[in-house]
Amino acid sequence: MATELPHADGVEPPPLSVVKANVHAALAEDVGTGDVTAALLADVADIAYLLCKQDCVVAGRPWFDATHRALDADVHIDWRVLEGQRVQAGTVLATLEGRARDLVSAERTALNFLQTLSATATQTAAFVDAVRGTKALILDTRKTLPGLRLAQKYAVRCGGGHNHRIGLFDAVMLKENHVRAEGSITAAIRAARAAQPNLPLIVEVENLAELAEALHEGCTRIVLDDFDAATRREAVKTTNGKIPLEISGGVTLETVRAIAEDGVDCISIGGITKHVQAIDLSMKLGPIPAKYA
Amino acid sequence: MATELPHADGVEPPPLSVVKANVHAALAEDVGTGDVTAALLADVADIAYLLCKQDCVVAGRPWFDATHRALDADVHIDWRVLEGQRVQAGTVLATLEGRARDLVSAERTALNFLQTLSATATQTAAFVDAVRGTKALILDTRKTLPGLRLAQKYAVRCGGGHNHRIGLFDAVMLKENHVRAEGSITAAIRAARAAQPNLPLIVEVENLAELAEALHEGCTRIVLDDFDAATRREAVKTTNGKIPLEISGGVTLETVRAIAEDGVDCISIGGITKHVQAIDLSMKLGPIPAKYA
Amino acid sequence: MATELPHADGVEPPPLSVVKANVHAALAEDVGTGDVTAALLADVADIAYLLCKQDCVVAGRPWFDATHRALDADVHIDWRVLEGQRVQAGTVLATLEGRARDLVSAERTALNFLQTLSATATQTAAFVDAVRGTKALILDTRKTLPGLRLAQKYAVRCGGGHNHRIGLFDAVMLKENHVRAEGSITAAIRAARAAQPNLPLIVEVENLAELAEALHEGCTRIVLDDFDAATRREAVKTTNGKIPLEISGGVTLETVRAIAEDGVDCISIGGITKHVQAIDLSMKLGPIPAKYA
Amino acid sequence: MATELPHADGVEPPPLSVVKANVHAALAEDVGTGDVTAALLADVADIAYLLCKQDCVVAGRPWFDATHRALDADVHIDWRVLEGQRVQAGTVLATLEGRARDLVSAERTALNFLQTLSATATQTAAFVDAVRGTKALILDTRKTLPGLRLAQKYAVRCGGGHNHRIGLFDAVMLKENHVRAEGSITAAIRAARAAQPNLPLIVEVENLAELAEALHEGCTRIVLDDFDAATRREAVKTTNGKIPLEISGGVTLETVRAIAEDGVDCISIGGITKHVQAIDLSMKLGPIPAKYA
Amino acid sequence: MATELPHADGVEPPPLSVVKANVHAALAEDVGTGDVTAALLADVADIAYLLCKQDCVVAGRPWFDATHRALDADVHIDWRVLEGQRVQAGTVLATLEGRARDLVSAERTALNFLQTLSATATQTAAFVDAVRGTKALILDTRKTLPGLRLAQKYAVRCGGGHNHRIGLFDAVMLKENHVRAEGSITAAIRAARAAQPNLPLIVEVENLAELAEALHEGCTRIVLDDFDAATRREAVKTTNGKIPLEISGGVTLETVRAIAEDGVDCISIGGITKHVQAIDLSMKLGPIPAKYA
Amino acid sequence: MATELPHADGVEPPPLSVVKANVHAALAEDVGTGDVTAALLADVADIAYLLCKQDCVVAGRPWFDATHRALDADVHIDWRVLEGQRVQAGTVLATLEGRARDLVSAERTALNFLQTLSATATQTAAFVDAVRGTKALILDTRKTLPGLRLAQKYAVRCGGGHNHRIGLFDAVMLKENHVRAEGSITAAIRAARAAQPNLPLIVEVENLAELAEALHEGCTRIVLDDFDAATRREAVKTTNGKIPLEISGGVTLETVRAIAEDGVDCISIGGITKHVQAIDLSMKLGPIPAKYA
Repeated sequence: MATELPHADGVEPPPLSVVKANVHAALAEDVGTGDVTAALLADVADIAYLLCKQDCVVAGRPWFDATHRALDADVHIDWRVLEGQRVQAGTVLATLEGRARDLVSAERTALNFLQTLSATATQTAAFVDAVRGTKALILDTRKTLPGLRLAQKYAVRCGGGHNHRIGLFDAVMLKENHVRAEGSITAAIRAARAAQPNLPLIVEVENLAELAEALHEGCTRIVLDDFDAATRREAVKTTNGKIPLEISGGVTLETVRAIAEDGVDCISIGGITKHVQAIDLSMKLGPIPAKYA
Repeated sequence: MATELPHADGVEPPPLSVVKANVHAALAEDVGTGDVTAALLADVADIAYLLCKQDCVVAGRPWFDATHRALDADVHIDWRVLEGQRVQAGTVLATLEGRARDLVSAERTALNFLQTLSATATQTAAFVDAVRGTKALILDTRKTLPGLRLAQKYAVRCGGGHNHRIGLFDAVMLKENHVRAEGSITAAIRAARAAQPNLPLIVEVENLAELAEALHEGCTRIVLDDFDAATRREAVKTTNGKIPLEISGGVTLETVRAIAEDGVDCISIGGITKHVQAIDLSMKLGPIPAKYA
Repeated sequence: MATELPHADGVEPPPLSVVKANVHAALAEDVGTGDVTAALLADVADIAYLLCKQDCVVAGRPWFDATHRALDADVHIDWRVLEGQRVQAGTVLATLEGRARDLVSAERTALNFLQTLSATATQTAAFVDAVRGTKALILDTRKTLPGLRLAQKYAVRCGGGHNHRIGLFDAVMLKENHVRAEGSITAAIRAARAAQPNLPLIVEVENLAELAEALHEGCTRIVLDDFDAATRREAVKTTNGKIPLEISGGVTLETVRAIAEDGVDCISIGGITKHVQAIDLSMKLGPIPAKYA
Repeated sequence: MATELPHADGVEPPPLSVVKANVHAALAEDVGTGDVTAALLADVADIAYLLCKQDCVVAGRPWFDATHRALDADVHIDWRVLEGQRVQAGTVLATLEGRARDLVSAERTALNFLQTLSATATQTAAFVDAVRGTKALILDTRKTLPGLRLAQKYAVRCGGGHNHRIGLFDAVMLKENHVRAEGSITAAIRAARAAQPNLPLIVEVENLAELAEALHEGCTRIVLDDFDAATRREAVKTTNGKIPLEISGGVTLETVRAIAEDGVDCISIGGITKHVQAIDLSMKLGPIPAKYA
Repeated sequence: MATELPHADGVEPPPLSVVKANVHAALAEDVGTGDVTAALLADVADIAYLLCKQDCVVAGRPWFDATHRALDADVHIDWRVLEGQRVQAGTVLATLEGRARDLVSAERTALNFLQTLSATATQTAAFVDAVRGTKALILDTRKTLPGLRLAQKYAVRCGGGHNHRIGLFDAVMLKENHVRAEGSITAAIRAARAAQPNLPLIVEVENLAELAEALHEGCTRIVLDDFDAATRREAVKTTNGKIPLEISGGVTLETVRAIAEDGVDCISIGGITKHVQAIDLSMKLGPIPAKYA
Repeated sequence: MATELPHADGVEPPPLSVVKANVHAALAEDVGTGDVTAALLADVADIAYLLCKQDCVVAGRPWFDATHRALDADVHIDWRVLEGQRVQAGTVLATLEGRARDLVSAERTALNFLQTLSATATQTAAFVDAVRGTKALILDTRKTLPGLRLAQKYAVRCGGGHNHRIGLFDAVMLKENHVRAEGSITAAIRAARAAQPNLPLIVEVENLAELAEALHEGCTRIVLDDFDAATRREAVKTTNGKIPLEISGGVTLETVRAIAEDGVDCISIGGITKHVQAIDLSMKLGPIPAKYA
């Protein structure tokens, strides 16, 4: 069993105020005016364990904890795995001890966070595994579940991926319509740099001529938009490491390895955050059964 | 093309305050301190169209609209499809007219809502199709994306499904631990009815003996927990329509038809809300190209 | 003196987040930019006691406690009565120990909650007493003080009453205008059941013919609207326990017993929540005087 | 019929942000996740009228309007009475025109505001009538319904009363414990004036000796605490109009006239805000029937 | 070194809810989606000290503390100076002990509060010093930094000043346009007193004739608007202490003493809150160096 | 007079939701429970003009407008100057037309925003003027007024300055303590880049040796910490334009030109946001007098 640590090395969750806002919204919609079934239980202390029923990469502990603590400030949760840790079906992830009514009232909301964020981490890890040994980083996108942007971006990091810009505010990203408006890649880059000299400047190019312009003018990263494999390889050769190259759009687990081996620096994958294959988890009242101990 | 109507017949979206709260949270995380790229565009009016690139059932118009209106109160959105309508890849769903900067700032967040909720509606519709001709209703569960409970439950209705309880507050649901605590199904039902005489009372049973007890004592609906096919059929026969029967847990598109044909009343499916296969949509600036017109 | 317990048996208060939101709003309007009088007191610890000056049924402890704790997280409040307990004038309900300035700053707001909610519990208990020995339950309505719906519904339970639906979201309630729109009671019930198969369905009927229709079609509960005594008794006879009958509108302490004795199941009373005869309470600094000890 | 004016002369409602916050809280608890019954109605426009079934003084129009507008921004409400106007049972107060579903969804919450605030205005007016011809003003207190302080204080003004301090922040009020702490009325007044030279300073006195001290030292207003009638008259004589005198505590409609005739300046009445005898109102769909026109 | 006390004698900070709202807003804009630099530090405990690099009057401890506590509930802050205390450059104001990452994440926001509020206190103290020995009080105005009204008004008190009204709600202030509307000072005062008999009534006069009217009619305080020195002295003589006189507008550190010596009661200074000369402070990780010990 | 445009070319204000949140907080603290003086005015329409009494650079129109609109949605504001425009004392900046009570209730809060933000823009412009003709950009810092970070950063842009990072979330900034923790500049940069490959990476260096290391390893910008003039010039020479150099700390209007002429790229100035010399503005009811027309 892993040493008990708050989270995977180098992966810091969003500020606690963000986690709490997510949890507050989710509890409001589930508990609403009160859990009418839990109120039927005796008002006693109880224990429970959290079982993972599917191989996965774990992510979402801060949300799971905050959900339980919102209902019972004194609940004790003892994690047996780290954030970002790969676990196998049948692993007990944590044990809990607290007021019985609050354990069951928090159960579904806490699991909903953990199953969704672990899904993101697990899917990310699959892509990270697929490109292992190449220099390519797996990046996320802004195609996220509304309201869970920061949570999912954290889960991506837990899965070994890296974050693209968080939103529209922390990097400039020039696309076709800016280039058309300014007349050329060069003009568009210059206008952007003049307006935002201190922000990352990402430029999407449509062909090798635009790539050459961007390389000449300079920017933070260049995105190759819908290049075929041969042109992509040509682009990597031309660029020669001068500016990081990103591939975006339509990449799958089947195609990602070949792309990485071409020598690109970053591959961004919308699917790791917009699709969700929820991980199968459950919380059970009582002590850990012998078969899982 | 369908007549322009606000939404599918009989499907009312959540209160506007709920939609706006979802949109506010999502825009805060995407636009944050300001869209630094959109600020580079000329401050002019523009038009755009919303293209669906995958067969699907549409859901999420109120969130799409509210996102655009939050940035540009005067944006004009002209929908060409209804909520709940089945559309084919290549359909233009809507045209937009507004301030260019705001169209692109709202784009991603608006699409994130529509692609997620249409995924839920589409997946629901697949299950509804699979049981067509039987009396079984497809129900959702509380396994939803945190913060999007009401939005997803609305999408389920758009897809032809029905809603189970919204949360912990609007129905009593007795499970194994209540039965154990009270000593019997009968005792548990009586305790629940005394405490909550005016709420729906759903009872989960483990075997035919418990079913008989529940049928005798009466309740709103009975859930058969993990019954094999033969016992399930026996249960339907015993119940004989006296109280609605629900099947829950582990049902897939492959198995749902057989279950429905056994004569159960409701089948609840966690997967339609906890898993998401986002629908492929995009917004393009400019007029609708001839090929889509 | 009663054993110290958090609240009356089986009566669970609304979620803490609801209580805190009530308290936050009330303190904001009373303390506002700061208590200018309390700031003149020495900054010392002090004790106080809470005196009830009128016979009543106590309700509102969670709000009283949360008000004091919002100003002084370390205040100690020692309750000597249970929620829902009947007490006589001259009873010391609790003793308090905390920062003197905060005790007096919280005093009025804490008392305003307790005097209002105890009023609701006390008035409810009067109706519950009046029908004792019959099978009739006393229900509340949606005629509540704006912002205090859940608090008052909890106070109704403390007084021995039961809750009707919480709001517009947790039950369908068909009235005259729905029946007119659909053409008949039968059609209205069928439309409602098709749209909301999983929610309680309450039907208001105007006469015995409509009652017969509703009984035949089936629903969760039937409300007799403005029936005279003879017709009401006829209705009870016809219904014969098949579906619970509710009497609503214009019932007073003088008339409630006779109605209950006719054999109806539920009597809903707007007056227990819309009218308030605040209970006379006061908080005094210092130890409990001998006459109350 | 009165000329159409927004509100009683000289009575300004609280800021719109306060009204909207009240309405938001009240709609959240009533409409919650959506009005399941209204969703069954056809989605059409309709008209309605608001009928007063009891003699009263009207107060609460801004809250009534804001409730309807929160659900249907385009609703048209045509008031036929002023805020603060005395009306008789059978008066149609307003007509409404808007989306049918929203009219019925807003109905109960809008009425709850109007029936509660008109109750406060009506009760206030009864006290104002009782002292008419004397110089005594009727004041409210801080004994208000939690969350509705500003709304009720406005209703008091609509009823012809005046407002005491709003809360703990806008006046210093010295009572027994401050006098004891400082050693004398004089010392307490001086300490308060030094700390808060620019706020009203209200001093409660227990006897004629304390009154003399307060008169000598000076303050904004003096409250006579529990003086018998003879001493009260002596106090009025001694004071001789130098500083306004307030009577507080235990005043009823039966006793208020005699107190006013003794020549005091202000009489504060907890009962006008802490007790509520809700006014009987109803909203009906359709045109005004002939008997009310 | 001063005895450790929570704050300057008699100066109570705004309610904790106000402080926390200020801190929440400030942290949201600084920490936003997370401190990406602090996340690079080892996750260990550390100590730090807060150094004042400029002579000043300290104000803002509650905001400094609340900022650090918002990120690390267990941080320990040991203050070595009082609120309102005058300190010299080179003074260590406090030592801190907590999680290293949180110390540096909170640093800038905590300092921003302390440097801004100490600036207000320091500037106030300069005016208070300038009038020492006269009876004139230094008052603030409503010319404050948006969002920091209560914080700055508290800092004014820490600097020895007094607060004018907090906002538009806690005093009536008649100016030229009211006098013009009502026809005379006398009429304006009477109208105001009738509408708001229980609030302070401040009257601004333009000349000695208006002053005479105001003195005759009576009010809480009179403001002399733009009087030359001779007329001001005449005004003081005429008033003869009957009603407090306030001088407002255009007063500087150079002119304030002469004005005070003329015998006015209050001098209000917009500059102490609208101008800010931030105090130079810094937080350093590690133990206090010998030179500051 | 300038052509009427919404704001200075290329300067986009923060999202409207940010502006509204600022305005909401400021109005809450000023208007509070209601403007008791404005309520005395007749309820009529009126006009007003906004006069600038001091040479300045204008900034803050969105906040000024939003304040007035929050109280009177129909107010008409006609601006005669652009954001970022230099104006002279005696310029009428705008005319207003709306409900008289709301014009005066909004006045102070609206002016507080405009006087504070124009102060920031004006001070920024002074530094921008001082370095004109050099390549140096004037940057702001995180030393801002709590709660007004985005507003002040916008005002800096209006004054011709550029924004440093917004907060802790949008760039990595390595300082002495990170270098010490990692063992060297090189190691610190590598660790930061590995953790945050897609964010700007700013490195503060203490001497020429560290500068050489940073230049060799590469980063987004290098900050020279407390270099004397000779070493600074040496640094510029060594760097030779390879990476932008920033000077930070202790720069004044007197010293900024010389620093810029040394060839650095950016000079960041805490004083333009942490100090405020509020601009003298006033709003007057009535038409524009002839002398200003």
